[in-house]
Amino acid sequence: MRSARLDEERLIAALRELFRRRGSGLEEGIGDDAAVIGIRGERLLLTKDLLVEGVDFRRAWQPPRLLGRKSLNVNLSDIAAMGGRPLYALLGLALPKKIEKRWVLEFLRGFRSAAEEHGVLLAGGDLSRAPRVMISVTVMGRAERPVLRRGAAPGDFLFVSGTLGDAAGGLRLLGRRGVPAAARRARGLPRRKSPGTAGRLVRAFFDPRPRLDLGRELARRRLASAMIDLSDGLSVDLSRICRASGAGAEIWADCIPLSDALKAAFPSALDLALHGGEDFELLFSVRPSRLEELRRLGRRFPLHPVGRLVRGRDVVLLGRGGRRTPLPVRGWDHFQ
Amino acid sequence: MRSARLDEERLIAALRELFRRRGSGLEEGIGDDAAVIGIRGERLLLTKDLLVEGVDFRRAWQPPRLLGRKSLNVNLSDIAAMGGRPLYALLGLALPKKIEKRWVLEFLRGFRSAAEEHGVLLAGGDLSRAPRVMISVTVMGRAERPVLRRGAAPGDFLFVSGTLGDAAGGLRLLGRRGVPAAARRARGLPRRKSPGTAGRLVRAFFDPRPRLDLGRELARRRLASAMIDLSDGLSVDLSRICRASGAGAEIWADCIPLSDALKAAFPSALDLALHGGEDFELLFSVRPSRLEELRRLGRRFPLHPVGRLVRGRDVVLLGRGGRRTPLPVRGWDHFQ
Repeated sequence: MRSARLDEERLIAALRELFRRRGSGLEEGIGDDAAVIGIRGERLLLTKDLLVEGVDFRRAWQPPRLLGRKSLNVNLSDIAAMGGRPLYALLGLALPKKIEKRWVLEFLRGFRSAAEEHGVLLAGGDLSRAPRVMISVTVMGRAERPVLRRGAAPGDFLFVSGTLGDAAGGLRLLGRRGVPAAARRARGLPRRKSPGTAGRLVRAFFDPRPRLDLGRELARRRLASAMIDLSDGLSVDLSRICRASGAGAEIWADCIPLSDALKAAFPSALDLALHGGEDFELLFSVRPSRLEELRRLGRRFPLHPVGRLVRGRDVVLLGRGGRRTPLPVRGWDHFQ
Repeated sequence: MRSARLDEERLIAALRELFRRRGSGLEEGIGDDAAVIGIRGERLLLTKDLLVEGVDFRRAWQPPRLLGRKSLNVNLSDIAAMGGRPLYALLGLALPKKIEKRWVLEFLRGFRSAAEEHGVLLAGGDLSRAPRVMISVTVMGRAERPVLRRGAAPGDFLFVSGTLGDAAGGLRLLGRRGVPAAARRARGLPRRKSPGTAGRLVRAFFDPRPRLDLGRELARRRLASAMIDLSDGLSVDLSRICRASGAGAEIWADCIPLSDALKAAFPSALDLALHGGEDFELLFSVRPSRLEELRRLGRRFPLHPVGRLVRGRDVVLLGRGGRRTPLPVRGWDHFQ
């Protein structure tokens, strides 16, 4: 469940206000990566994401196969952020009348490839018309011990699961080059070959990978006190953990993991990493007493400490020479 | 899960082909009103419907409050068609940048009023931008004994749960009158007063009611051998029961229940009832041996026999004087 832009925070507040009721098994409702529903001792997760042509993707740019993968994978990323295992998906697809059959089939094949990769069964969906392609995916999963956004405490360390800003960089490259050579290049590239700087960034935007294994390990070992997936950018998503947990945070600028590709392509790499969005990495907090155990997990997963929870409400960026500046919470720039 | 138009039947076939796997608790996947998932002896239902501005509704016509109700209720109708009880909903909402706040709040209030009416909890969702309003609702429910589309057998009688064609008539009236007086009239009318012919039909289109109580009673007593909700019109939805059950059907033209309002407004009332769509009544089949028991249920619910399942694959309309004509399977006319 992404919900990036900031005026939408207010809409979410209105939603929470309007739909305050809990109970009947609804353990977590609006306001986490997925809803948590208790049924006969089982904890089920439910999450939903919308992708709208012209807002979340452009049809001329995005290879339909990768779009099909992404439309499932962004939902799986929400399940990963709860420490869950995905089980079933529903696919809602609204298509323009004149869309090419090949596009649709490629999209579905991509969706299937991601579903098979993660053992997800397509349980149903809905088809409709629309002037532009609209994709609505719902995923049901399960988690023995769901990791929420609100479990962090001052003193906890913050980690991310990979380099940040690559997808935002990729999108910016696509924008620069118009109907882009970069896209075509990324499309043609076999997965194993080194795609070069532009291809690597564009690929990060087109084909994000949900961190399901890591999310589950963190939940199983109770290592993460709070967790979220980075869909709207570190600044936005961190502020969500802080608000939910009633804490502030400091972020260490020199620890934000940046890929060589991003640094090579953008002098503003740090800015993209802080505010870019669509990373679909995990951001999670860890009690100081559990750092040693986390380190062992670091052998299997790329884990980067990026800051620490503090008392209060402020989120601060610690720059070079210890300069402290408030971290502005900036939403993700969509196409329109 | 609606999926009216006929070239989409082919798309659904492609989907089924691509996503054939079952198992892991998925008892019913693509191709019924809702997916059936077995978890710890519980049978969960999952269904999803898309509503797209300009296709399923017009913003200038549809009062936002009623649209909010309808966007949940069409999903509850799918749960009703399985004989289930709805539990939780997810709401995906893509909104144009410039939409009025009041519209959004009214929409949400309508959604909530339908949710409260049926004891459904909003568990989460997603917000996004789009050039036109797009609504994607997912509902999870449960059913002890889900009623499928494929349980009908030749000899079974077919029943519907109310008059047909009213919503299609209402939509046609709206279309005739442009940005319509009829809509404004229906909007202002308190529910209990008699709204007159046009208001009644327009109301049927704007504010359909899911037949949850009836669906559950039919399932609990095992009275329905197959069931579907009439979202795409009797001809389309009946053909789905027939195909799923491997049977044909004959429909008795003079038994199709038509409201006085529809007959007064349209000489072609029968045509609207057969092919109109958006009735959200239940269509179900009953073994001859259970008719007596069904009759008792008829004291509480408006039940109308409309035909019978037969051997073969043909769906035939029995007209006046016993004239038999093939029932053309015609999809629902959307706005575009």
